[in-house]
Amino acid sequence: MSQPLRLGIAGLGTVGIGTVKIIQKHAELLARRTGRPILISAVSARDRMKNRDADLSSYVWEEDPVRLATRKDVDVFVELMGGADGAAFDATRAAIAAGKDVVTANKAMLAHHGHTLAAQAEARGHVIRFEAAVAGGIPVVKALTEGLAGNAITRVMGVMNGTCNYILTRMESAGLAYAEVFEEARQLGYLEADPNLDVGGIDAGHKLSLLAAIAFGTRVAFDAVELEGIGRISIDDIRRAADMGFRIKLLGVAQMTGRGLEQRMSPCLVPAESPLGQLHGGTNMVVLEGDSVGQIVLRGAGAGAGPTASAVMSDVIEIARGCRISTFGQPADTLAEPVAAKAMAPAPFYLRMELTDKPGALAKVATILGEEGISIDRMRQYGHADASAPVLIVTHKTTREAIDHAARRLPGTGVVLGEPVAIRIESV
Amino acid sequence: MSQPLRLGIAGLGTVGIGTVKIIQKHAELLARRTGRPILISAVSARDRMKNRDADLSSYVWEEDPVRLATRKDVDVFVELMGGADGAAFDATRAAIAAGKDVVTANKAMLAHHGHTLAAQAEARGHVIRFEAAVAGGIPVVKALTEGLAGNAITRVMGVMNGTCNYILTRMESAGLAYAEVFEEARQLGYLEADPNLDVGGIDAGHKLSLLAAIAFGTRVAFDAVELEGIGRISIDDIRRAADMGFRIKLLGVAQMTGRGLEQRMSPCLVPAESPLGQLHGGTNMVVLEGDSVGQIVLRGAGAGAGPTASAVMSDVIEIARGCRISTFGQPADTLAEPVAAKAMAPAPFYLRMELTDKPGALAKVATILGEEGISIDRMRQYGHADASAPVLIVTHKTTREAIDHAARRLPGTGVVLGEPVAIRIESV
Repeated sequence: MSQPLRLGIAGLGTVGIGTVKIIQKHAELLARRTGRPILISAVSARDRMKNRDADLSSYVWEEDPVRLATRKDVDVFVELMGGADGAAFDATRAAIAAGKDVVTANKAMLAHHGHTLAAQAEARGHVIRFEAAVAGGIPVVKALTEGLAGNAITRVMGVMNGTCNYILTRMESAGLAYAEVFEEARQLGYLEADPNLDVGGIDAGHKLSLLAAIAFGTRVAFDAVELEGIGRISIDDIRRAADMGFRIKLLGVAQMTGRGLEQRMSPCLVPAESPLGQLHGGTNMVVLEGDSVGQIVLRGAGAGAGPTASAVMSDVIEIARGCRISTFGQPADTLAEPVAAKAMAPAPFYLRMELTDKPGALAKVATILGEEGISIDRMRQYGHADASAPVLIVTHKTTREAIDHAARRLPGTGVVLGEPVAIRIESV
Repeated sequence: MSQPLRLGIAGLGTVGIGTVKIIQKHAELLARRTGRPILISAVSARDRMKNRDADLSSYVWEEDPVRLATRKDVDVFVELMGGADGAAFDATRAAIAAGKDVVTANKAMLAHHGHTLAAQAEARGHVIRFEAAVAGGIPVVKALTEGLAGNAITRVMGVMNGTCNYILTRMESAGLAYAEVFEEARQLGYLEADPNLDVGGIDAGHKLSLLAAIAFGTRVAFDAVELEGIGRISIDDIRRAADMGFRIKLLGVAQMTGRGLEQRMSPCLVPAESPLGQLHGGTNMVVLEGDSVGQIVLRGAGAGAGPTASAVMSDVIEIARGCRISTFGQPADTLAEPVAAKAMAPAPFYLRMELTDKPGALAKVATILGEEGISIDRMRQYGHADASAPVLIVTHKTTREAIDHAARRLPGTGVVLGEPVAIRIESV
């Protein structure tokens, strides 16, 4: 049997402990599958005294993750601390400088520093793998980097934040307002310390930017992701969208268009009967589209100790087997600087507004839409008890600019109460 | 840039030509992703004169695939001829003896000879990869062998024959009998020359046996797959199952139980709302379950030139990148000889029978079920115009043996007309 592969694990939260447990429980299985023992040399975490549900007594304890990352008896630095900068970034850089391979679950760090780290690692012949950083246990980085590597990727989509999907599906099933379910989720411990990472779409945006880099051979461009959270989604919109055959998802979409690289993480309507529309609760789903393979859909747990540790181990095993793949699927120095699309691809939109109950009101709305070049696919006006009526419109394909312009003009007609709501409909 | 990787492609049907086209179209992309050019040295097929939709003029033509497989200028033998034995097997053995790596889409050959071929290749330090042999474009071999390699796999399930799924969903949507849709499928060219490969579950059984070998670290045991085709599924059962909230799928299930390795490819009921239940038409779906990752669902095109060629290229790229993974995820000489489970795991069953319209008829049925230790979860009797009434029963968990025994006894009561139909309900 070959030399053991020796790990240094920094960060002993749920994922770190989950990883330790797999290595302990499946030592024999892992050795059979990789041809060599996988060992833990040393670990580190902020609080040594914390009670952890695993026996760590046979591993060296390092207070300083930088020291851990540079130990002679560590071949692979496993970074499970999190955070874009700070200790995780310092230790990862130190590991690379010391000639270690790196496995990380840190989407924020890679979204901000992925290109630099990859270039540094590759210059020394070392690898950075990050399956656990995107969609938990779903082997989507592997599917995209390896399984679909014979394809020109045309689009990557996904529901990649389980908390947001939980909130949206819970709003629908329980008929509750956003604020109520947000509070529920907070009490259940589903939200990050800074909830905006979840509900603002930032966490999912980090993941999308990493997949986009692999898919399109471009440098990670998280700053160019158009981000919109789920805070403005009302129970009314969820109900009305359902009436029209749709569900609302916080959907990430990355595609290369004639106008450049389009990356957005925003609420979208998807057909209720589609795999994305059928995705309930905290589960994640990623849709990959390639010129040969067509559409591949991957579904699974996007978080949690077991699924995320499973993804960490997938990377460790890849390294143990001697597979050495560039971080983003091609050498970092061949990744193109992406041109961010200034305008998003046209799409149908869902429009909801409250119309005053006056003769000619609908005509005024239709006139403005027509003037903006927006044509109507379907329209529905609801019965009402008071002086205003909800009106739903599904448009044919149009631009975000046209919709925004129309939405700004509509209140000026005097027949539209409040702000119209416009949500993109993604064809899946 | 490193040395080119040189292919010899045997078999120029839709998948072979699809593979040639990807290599021609994406030469630059493939070189960027693998770090080396991927070239075709030579090709072979039965009929040189056949008009093919690709320019093959720059490749050497070999009449004999064995000669192709052993050429000095071939690093990887790409076997896309098909057939368990004959030319494909001869050429693959010749390639291995000549020290070539092998990429194949040939599920039948691997189901019958996979272990021998893997052992021979590995003894020489060479690899056999077969992503295209299972579920077309879905990267399921990679997901199982690599993505979930940190898990003890608990169950593998899948709809892996698009033709059968097309037939079953078309029966439901059009309300047609099996024979009618079978004839439609034949005329559309969806069926193999020997249709029993499709509708008898053999093709899908081949695929299941390959996944089971990876999942459970056992030698391929296709002969131990319990095979049952879709020929006995009636439109009545499809409709009645739908009434009870189920859909009927030709479902492969492999799991390691206390009784041994259970492998079956047979019609099952699955909840209509589950991902498997929602799978319509010719699409494939594979469900992988592991002790850490939970459940992962993969969905995509299971056949066709583009998807299957995409899978072939995934293997070629893996080899070009220098990843060398054992055929079944661990060395062939470590694969255990599986003990086939003699009895399948208990499950709920769906029972349909025609009951004569006599007092006490249902009591007689219930008595027999009770005597066989089968308890009833739900029962439904339909209104009827003639002298018999359809009765549906969903049982609690019981054994296949108990169900079969009861089904044999029921006609003897004199109140059950014809043969009762019993179909397993798989919990997904």
